[in-house]
Amino acid sequence: MAAVKACNILITGANRGLGLETVKQLLEDSCPKRHIFATCRNPDGPKSEALRELAKKHPSVITIIRLDADDPCSIKESAEKVGSLLGNNGLNLLVNNAGILARGTIQTSSVESMKNTFSTNVIGPLLIIQEYLPYLKKAAKASGTPGMSCSKAAVINVSTVGGSISTMPSLFKQFPVLPYCVSKAGFNMLTVLAAEELKADEILCMALHPGWVKTELGGEKAPLEPKESVEGMLRVIGSLTEQQHGGFMDYTGKTIPW
Amino acid sequence: MAAVKACNILITGANRGLGLETVKQLLEDSCPKRHIFATCRNPDGPKSEALRELAKKHPSVITIIRLDADDPCSIKESAEKVGSLLGNNGLNLLVNNAGILARGTIQTSSVESMKNTFSTNVIGPLLIIQEYLPYLKKAAKASGTPGMSCSKAAVINVSTVGGSISTMPSLFKQFPVLPYCVSKAGFNMLTVLAAEELKADEILCMALHPGWVKTELGGEKAPLEPKESVEGMLRVIGSLTEQQHGGFMDYTGKTIPW
Ligand SMILES: NC(=O)c1ccc[n+]([C@@H]2O[C@H](COP(=O)([O-])OP(=O)(O)OC[C@H]3O[C@@H](n4cnc5c(N)ncnc54)[C@H](OP(=O)(O)O)[C@@H]3O)[C@@H](O)[C@H]2O)c1
Ligand SMILES: NC(=O)c1ccc[n+]([C@@H]2O[C@H](COP(=O)([O-])OP(=O)(O)OC[C@H]3O[C@@H](n4cnc5c(N)ncnc54)[C@H](OP(=O)(O)O)[C@@H]3O)[C@@H](O)[C@H]2O)c1
Repeated sequence: MAAVKACNILITGANRGLGLETVKQLLEDSCPKRHIFATCRNPDGPKSEALRELAKKHPSVITIIRLDADDPCSIKESAEKVGSLLGNNGLNLLVNNAGILARGTIQTSSVESMKNTFSTNVIGPLLIIQEYLPYLKKAAKASGTPGMSCSKAAVINVSTVGGSISTMPSLFKQFPVLPYCVSKAGFNMLTVLAAEELKADEILCMALHPGWVKTELGGEKAPLEPKESVEGMLRVIGSLTEQQHGGFMDYTGKTIPW
Repeated sequence: MAAVKACNILITGANRGLGLETVKQLLEDSCPKRHIFATCRNPDGPKSEALRELAKKHPSVITIIRLDADDPCSIKESAEKVGSLLGNNGLNLLVNNAGILARGTIQTSSVESMKNTFSTNVIGPLLIIQEYLPYLKKAAKASGTPGMSCSKAAVINVSTVGGSISTMPSLFKQFPVLPYCVSKAGFNMLTVLAAEELKADEILCMALHPGWVKTELGGEKAPLEPKESVEGMLRVIGSLTEQQHGGFMDYTGKTIPW
């Protein structure tokens, strides 16, 4: 794979699913000075056991940090903690992976499900970018190389083809998940505006679709294993340049229309 | 103009701006059995004076109904009231016009502004479609003509080019209104999924951009007067067929990319 050379990496929702698999694969990667801030909303809970095991085996590489995308205070606190651990170093790669799905159609979607998906999938990532921006800027400035890449400074927003306004109608019967789709379309807008705003700082921003993957969110019927999806995503992430800034791709590198 | 032949029409945010201008122009229109449900969140307030005056002059055509897009109860109550006034008739045209703008960038947008714009611009219209769907279905069934049109049964979502993910980055410096853009991108997703779901009922759904118009929301610098914008929108609305179902157009009839 095109190795991800980023040193300091933060991942949200790192305790299970695609987030956990991403941490695992980044450990196998060949970057010597790597540090992974594996964040999750409940580091001591039963759903984070696998991550705790992994961190125990790799204490110099992984730090588990509490970050709940629905709780602005926890986002702020996590950034303070990560900032103090980074010291004079910047954050090279921020992966906004945490997300929730909610089912519903026009006729059945509830206010609650609309609010919850929007909070976790859109407002959370916005606040996370806000809080971590100083460290991303520091990494971009320190890099000394021109252009953009994930080893310099990047925000990868894990979106979905379900947020593609031009694609989704044809998938809606199979995936009646309107609150999720609406939130991810908003997330895609957030991504392109972040790309526009952070261009001057040479921080790469893009949206990435992992494919349909067997996780709690993806369900049993999904054709992909997390291993294959994350291998693909890391290959894409490792190969990104300013050409893909503000773009929307899937785990194979194919461009997805908005 | 291609006259809007819909009989029973409901408009949200009808007390000022584009909503009020739409009511005015629909009055000049030549549909004999027309009834307009002009909804607003505060029918007795100072901001609804012009609408009250208009309704006083045309009591057989205009009924003012309270509808606050942020208040699910008021949406439900409005639908019960409109339903009882419609009697055996259906609702031909629902115009989701009410909307709010909030400024902000990645760095400055607040949780509050994200939540408020999403509530008014996305959740409100969703609930409105849910509550009025029985009356739209009734109109579609009663029409007896095949295909789709706004005189049969239609939902027009007043969106904005600011919700266009492919267009907005180039406009963001001039219009730093991230919470608004994110909400309207979500609203566009809602529109295409509504189009997909309501296709079987032959209810036309599409998103319409009014242009940049001198209203409280559009501001002083806008090049268009409400008159010109609404004339264009009504021309587009009047000419819609199933060809435009699920589409996104501006007030001149030009297609806007997602
Ligand atoms: N799987 C697919 O087929 C698929 C397809 C397209 C896109 N995606 C996207 O991929 C990303 C990861 O999904 P996944 O398949 O790995 O789902 P998953 O197995 O359900 O895992 C979701 C992760 O997000 C975390 N999370 C949820 N709400 C959170 C919050 N408020 N704060 C912090 N973390 C939170 C979960 O933590 P807890 O353990 O605490 O709940 C968990 O770690 C999501 O953004 C999803 O939209 C997945
Ligand atoms: N003007 C432009 O340049 C422009 C461009 C693109 C799109 N648009 C869209 O066009 C639509 C109308 O905008 P406008 O220019 O006419 O704006 P406006 O002059 O500011 O009027 C907004 C209308 O929406 C109503 N409204 C706001 N929140 C509401 C709520 N919670 N419940 C019910 N009504 C509510 C307002 O009622 P109150 O009087 O009670 O506040 C008012 O009637 C909006 O959806 C907007 O996004 C406008």
